[in-house]
Parts: sequence; structure tokens; C-alpha cells
Amino acid sequence: MNRIEPGPRTTVRRLRERGEYDRELIYGILDEAFVCHAACSVDGTVWMIPTAFGRDGDRLLLHGAAANHVLKAAAQGAELTVNVMLTDGLVLARSTFNHSINYRSVTIFGTVTDITDPVDKTEALERIVEHMLPGRSVEARPPSPSELKQTRVVSLPIEEASAKVRAGGPHDDEPDLGLPVWAGVLPLRMTAGAPIADEEHPPGAPVSSTVDQPARW
Amino acid sequence: MNRIEPGPRTTVRRLRERGEYDRELIYGILDEAFVCHAACSVDGTVWMIPTAFGRDGDRLLLHGAAANHVLKAAAQGAELTVNVMLTDGLVLARSTFNHSINYRSVTIFGTVTDITDPVDKTEALERIVEHMLPGRSVEARPPSPSELKQTRVVSLPIEEASAKVRAGGPHDDEPDLGLPVWAGVLPLRMTAGAPIADEEHPPGAPVSSTVDQPARW
Repeated sequence: MNRIEPGPRTTVRRLRERGEYDRELIYGILDEAFVCHAACSVDGTVWMIPTAFGRDGDRLLLHGAAANHVLKAAAQGAELTVNVMLTDGLVLARSTFNHSINYRSVTIFGTVTDITDPVDKTEALERIVEHMLPGRSVEARPPSPSELKQTRVVSLPIEEASAKVRAGGPHDDEPDLGLPVWAGVLPLRMTAGAPIADEEHPPGAPVSSTVDQPARW
Repeated sequence: MNRIEPGPRTTVRRLRERGEYDRELIYGILDEAFVCHAACSVDGTVWMIPTAFGRDGDRLLLHGAAANHVLKAAAQGAELTVNVMLTDGLVLARSTFNHSINYRSVTIFGTVTDITDPVDKTEALERIVEHMLPGRSVEARPPSPSELKQTRVVSLPIEEASAKVRAGGPHDDEPDLGLPVWAGVLPLRMTAGAPIADEEHPPGAPVSSTVDQPARW
């Protein structure tokens, strides 16, 4: 097992049996998600954005407009906190107290590297598009030099990181087990619907299997 | 229209046409989601948790273990930043640059009120359970005095708040419209599967329509 050593900020304290530090498990969660929440503190305010991301080995890749407040502050040295959350189901116990959510979550703390080299930047953006929809970066036109300039791409080391996972059925207290209440799990998952072609400008190519049969969902 | 006056921190600057300040629209997004991300800064670190929530009129309700770091800091006066994000689809343009996500997102800044009165706390927890699964709070056993003590519940005013929304098809640049690339939207939504009864302790009641035909999904 390739384990990330839990540090003072990444040791799961509440419900510590849910803490996970295996690198493959953490990468698996990151790769299944495509939106993360990134936050940093600037002048006393915590700014938070939901944003798409990619992964290149042990680096998380984030992008946004060059002027994006959070990414700009991060590029200038502000520490970033990132969380990725997958919701797998509602855990319905016999007591409201024991209700819970089945989830897989990853938290990362770190400072980013601003990716400015056009070749590296292009490759990182390709990774982000591939993370969103595998195969899509081959279909769409790659970024022009001007588009690259308008985009900020940063990489965050997946080093000070940990996962927290809850799975399985409800854990009811013994005295509640006899209550006439249904208990179990309502599974939840993200699903893709049928692709909707651009109505304003009908596309000049048929829908590909990349889009029609997405590997992700 | 019941508008929240945009303030210096809630005026959407990037892509400002996506900024929304209508209270009903903001509430609609909050009510469709059931997990939010809450963050605050403590001793130079931004701590972020994904967590369930509820809404009572113009207040967001959050709960957690009494010792939960983020909620405890918030109860002691640290400002909270909350984001709720609904992902509606992948926007697949002819260029990778114009790829986007259809989403509805709400950000709230504020300081919380620690709800300590047992009656108010019970009511707030009921709201959170109802937010997660409408009708469920009537089925499950309500919290005992000891369970109430183990739980922290805080309320955050939905006052310094704004929404950001992207909907519809791709916006390609004119010169790209002729490219032989399929363009459009891949819709995404959360779906519930068939309920899975507690295997360890088979429930003493059949599954209810609350669980089997959830109003939410």
C-alpha cells in the first residue's frame, strides 16, 4: 500500500475509523469526481469556488480565468484548501440521530505552482478536459496562444491529503432495533442523460461515443 | 422580485451576467441540494467540510458533532463561507477553451448563531432531516436529550449571499462553428436507486413511499 503519512492537519479525528491515507484510494476518489471546492483566505475573508479539475500523477490541476480571485491568490502564495466530495447515498437509520450520508471525500492542503510555460499549460488543460470527459480533448480544437494567456492553470501537490469514507448500512442503537421504522440506504449517483446538440448552431459532426457513451457515468 | 442587495463580496465579477440575487432563486438552489461546503479560517488554516444542511426561511441550518472543528470555530465567532453547487451538465464546445459546466451555485458569507435551546435544536434537526429526505423526520425516532447534547446546530443568515448560474448550450467562437466537431450539452443529474434495507438487522417496517418514491430525485 502506497500510504500518505497523515500529518497534524490531515489526521482524521472525528470518526477516525473513516480516515483513509492510501494514495490509490485517494486518487480513485479524485478521478471519479470532476468538480472540487477550492478555498483560500485573503484579507480576512475565506473565498471558495466550485471548479473543474484534473489530475496528473500526484498533482491536482486547477484552471480558471487569469483574473480569478482564488486562483490568483493561490498563484501568489496563499495556501489552498481543496475538498472533493462524492455522495453515494442517504443512510436512513431508525433514529434521526443515526441518520448519515454515505460519501467519499478528499481534503488537500497546499501551495500551488503557477503553470506558465505554454506547452505545460496546454498539456495541463488537456488533462482537465480528459478528466471531465475522457476522449474529448482529441475531438475539440486545442487552445490558441491567446486563449492560453487568458487562462490560469495551477498545480497542487497531492501530499498533505487524506480521505474520509463512509459506506454501508445504518448503525442503530440496540434499543432502537425493534422500532417499527424502515432502515437502510437510499443509493444516489450522478447519471448522464442523452446528449443535446447545440440548437443555435447545429454541429457539423455526429455525436461521438466519447459523448454518447461516457466512460464516467 | 425579492432581491438580496449585492454587496462588495457577493457581486459576481467574473462573467457577471451569471450573477443572480433573487431570493427565491437562491432558495430554490439551496432546497434542491442537500450537501454544502462550509469553510472558515482558524490560526492561518482554511478548514473546509462537506456537510448536510437544512433551511428555515432565511437561515441555513448546519449540524455536526459538538467537537466538529469548523462548526465549533463558527459558533465561537469565526466567519463562515458556504457554497452549494448543483451540476447540471457538461458543456461541450468546438474548442476546449469554450468547454464549460452548466451549474447553479450559491455562496453565503456570515457569522452563525449557536442554537442551544433544546426545543429550537430539535426543530432545526428536524428541518435538516426533512431537507435531506422530505417526510423522513416523521418516521424516525426524534433525538433524545443526550443526543441533542452531542450535536451542535448553528444557523447562518442567508443575507450576504449570491448565486451564479450557467445554463444552455455552448458559446463557440464564430470561426470554430464550421469545425467538424460535435457540440452540445451532456446533461447530468443525481438519481436515486432502489432502497437497500438494513441487512444486519432487517427493519421491522416495510419501506415507505418517503424512501421509495423520494420527492427530491
